[in-house]
Amino acid sequence: MVERMLAAELPGAAGREVTLAGSVHRVRELPAVTFLVLRDRSATVQVVLRDPDLREQARALVEETVVSVTGPAVANPQAPGGVEVVDPRLEVLGAAEQPPVELWRPSLTASLPTLLDQAAVTLRHPRRQTVFRISAAALAGFRATLDAAGFTEVTSPKIVASATESGANVFALDYFGRRAYLAQSPQFYKQVMVGVFERVYETGPVFRAEPHDTARHLASYTSLDAELGFVRDHFDVMAVLRDVVAGMLEEVRARVPAYGEVVVGGELPSVPSEIPWIHFADAQALIARETGSDPTGEPDLAPEHERFLGEWAMREHGSDFVFVTGYPMVKRPFYTHPEPGRPEFSNSFDLLFRGLELVTGGQRLHRYADYLAALDARGESPEPYQGYLDAFRYGMPPHGGFAIGLERFLARLTGATNVREVTLFPRDLNRVSP
Amino acid sequence: MVERMLAAELPGAAGREVTLAGSVHRVRELPAVTFLVLRDRSATVQVVLRDPDLREQARALVEETVVSVTGPAVANPQAPGGVEVVDPRLEVLGAAEQPPVELWRPSLTASLPTLLDQAAVTLRHPRRQTVFRISAAALAGFRATLDAAGFTEVTSPKIVASATESGANVFALDYFGRRAYLAQSPQFYKQVMVGVFERVYETGPVFRAEPHDTARHLASYTSLDAELGFVRDHFDVMAVLRDVVAGMLEEVRARVPAYGEVVVGGELPSVPSEIPWIHFADAQALIARETGSDPTGEPDLAPEHERFLGEWAMREHGSDFVFVTGYPMVKRPFYTHPEPGRPEFSNSFDLLFRGLELVTGGQRLHRYADYLAALDARGESPEPYQGYLDAFRYGMPPHGGFAIGLERFLARLTGATNVREVTLFPRDLNRVSP
Repeated sequence: MVERMLAAELPGAAGREVTLAGSVHRVRELPAVTFLVLRDRSATVQVVLRDPDLREQARALVEETVVSVTGPAVANPQAPGGVEVVDPRLEVLGAAEQPPVELWRPSLTASLPTLLDQAAVTLRHPRRQTVFRISAAALAGFRATLDAAGFTEVTSPKIVASATESGANVFALDYFGRRAYLAQSPQFYKQVMVGVFERVYETGPVFRAEPHDTARHLASYTSLDAELGFVRDHFDVMAVLRDVVAGMLEEVRARVPAYGEVVVGGELPSVPSEIPWIHFADAQALIARETGSDPTGEPDLAPEHERFLGEWAMREHGSDFVFVTGYPMVKRPFYTHPEPGRPEFSNSFDLLFRGLELVTGGQRLHRYADYLAALDARGESPEPYQGYLDAFRYGMPPHGGFAIGLERFLARLTGATNVREVTLFPRDLNRVSP
Repeated sequence: MVERMLAAELPGAAGREVTLAGSVHRVRELPAVTFLVLRDRSATVQVVLRDPDLREQARALVEETVVSVTGPAVANPQAPGGVEVVDPRLEVLGAAEQPPVELWRPSLTASLPTLLDQAAVTLRHPRRQTVFRISAAALAGFRATLDAAGFTEVTSPKIVASATESGANVFALDYFGRRAYLAQSPQFYKQVMVGVFERVYETGPVFRAEPHDTARHLASYTSLDAELGFVRDHFDVMAVLRDVVAGMLEEVRARVPAYGEVVVGGELPSVPSEIPWIHFADAQALIARETGSDPTGEPDLAPEHERFLGEWAMREHGSDFVFVTGYPMVKRPFYTHPEPGRPEFSNSFDLLFRGLELVTGGQRLHRYADYLAALDARGESPEPYQGYLDAFRYGMPPHGGFAIGLERFLARLTGATNVREVTLFPRDLNRVSP
């Protein structure tokens, strides 16, 4: 490695000769002095140039040039961090052309298409970096929480033989002259793996041929999937999900000190030790009672009703989070476990965060005969499902799980109005590069 | 959750009433007693049935039935683990049909096609489980090592606009009426992200339309990719790779006590603090000197020469691992950095493990002009590479990286002769389910 100190370590190095390396974040030439702000993965530092030859050299540096500087670290109460580097030896490690955006400005004003088209540069902006550091920390928190709870990570195939799970919105593939499909979720595989490891998770891409150009949908996103056996019902799944969301936020807090720059209100939400919940039927009754509209009979909640429930949870329980349980079976996939005694409802849930859906999950069917009946009721043959159904045929515990869309989670946390803002290289109806 | 104790905790519970839940691993009926072996995610335990009604109930249990048992934990020096459960209350949680293989046998004798076709059941065999627990631990070790070294995890798109990286063996996709491709590697994206975070990694699926039906190739596998900036040359990359491989093996040792059941020789290899290395040209000279054959002038090493180098590394350095550096440029991709002073060679490397290639990596070009020249030399237009080339155009540090194929790593470790044996649900020329 270039023998270097990180920018974040400079405050402890006053009085010593140091080498730093990074990108020229900004050059500011004043009458008597030139300030060069150097950015590395840890922070930015101020480099002060007084020597006329050095100032001349700095004049030729465009922003984003990658350099190393070697010189004395000098305490200066005026400098950010209290220490700056003065008149160092300056070496160019990677030349640059003038970037298309000004990364040194506090925020990028570029339009979303520019932001995405120029991703190689715009992602370098400190606030953009913070968003994706939060993403990495959230991923780490998801895994750490589940590892500690006895889950095993699995990797399931992304190319599948049939478009079984929903039938719609799948990408078709030329697979060695045959037709195959990109997996819309690891749902079937994670259930199969519950039969092996009891508790499993996977983090990976899923694919939806979403034909609508909306602010919420992507053709591919990162799905954080968990599934666990030996549950009593969906409430056991909700308890694990509560810990997972808390663990994700804890890891963000621990790993990304700058999170306040980008999250809504500057502070991470806190997760109550028990997230309040309300049954779908009771939620409809509540909405009918307390708002002008009566949703009774509708099979799903309208966005404004989800928002109402978010406000209700904050008012009644002081919680940013609320579970809605028991969604009608008609709106849930065929593997959903019905509610005992009220089979028109299901043992499923949505987790709402500030009135917006964040996670979907539930208890699944676990008996072979129930799967055969559920497929039969849909008029489907069990044959294309055989590798999946075998798991139930040869013994499966009661189980359930959930899936968190990483980008949607990030969008909620940062208040992004378009999920593309929080995706490194989004894919949609119109966009397949960079 | 079903209030249960895990099987592994039973030895500490003698004298208490316990509930366990899991799969019926085996039922053995003797004249005076029936032994039921119960398997959960932690271990197996012995359940002893003496009560005639219970014995009658157990007679109806096929293996893999999911049950819970509640009864006294009784110390018995004869029992595995020293404690067994005697005459418990027995409840069926998930019925099963007779499984197609006998999971209670020490090893599965089924053919590979049966093993894979019946994955939902065969993966439950304890030794199969151990293989994939090692896989999960290796993944965790990869991430933990890089997290500790200041790397940031990224998620790159798996659908790309052009088949740029190699041109051959790509899967084509109907992408909203246009043609797109499945990504063969995250190579371009991880390089772009070095410009953002300096040090990045990704674990995820890659796709190769490999038309040959071999024991080594899959149509999709899990690639563990790392890339880091501010390197002097490929030796800095090799130092990180050394730590990563050591970290993966440490995590396997820590998380999977049963690893000895499946790894070659029952013991994990140890990674020297510095892995020995030999330059490609010197390796060829050594092979010419010490074996009958003279490979001088060949652009690559034959498998028997890799084996020879593996033996040489063990004999001369006592190491299971050896780096071969400086492979000829003609055999490396266009973004490879040439060796200063000997531009026919490259700043690249292969890591051999016991004479078999395990990892490939190297230093990359980092100057925009060098990329334009490299593409021009291949007669290619820079246009389809624009989103990638922008990273170099706007300043990039010297950098390099590597990619580990998770399944290949597992195959080497376990001595599997076919990489499909160590893949949960492999995809190849003939197989796209389960």
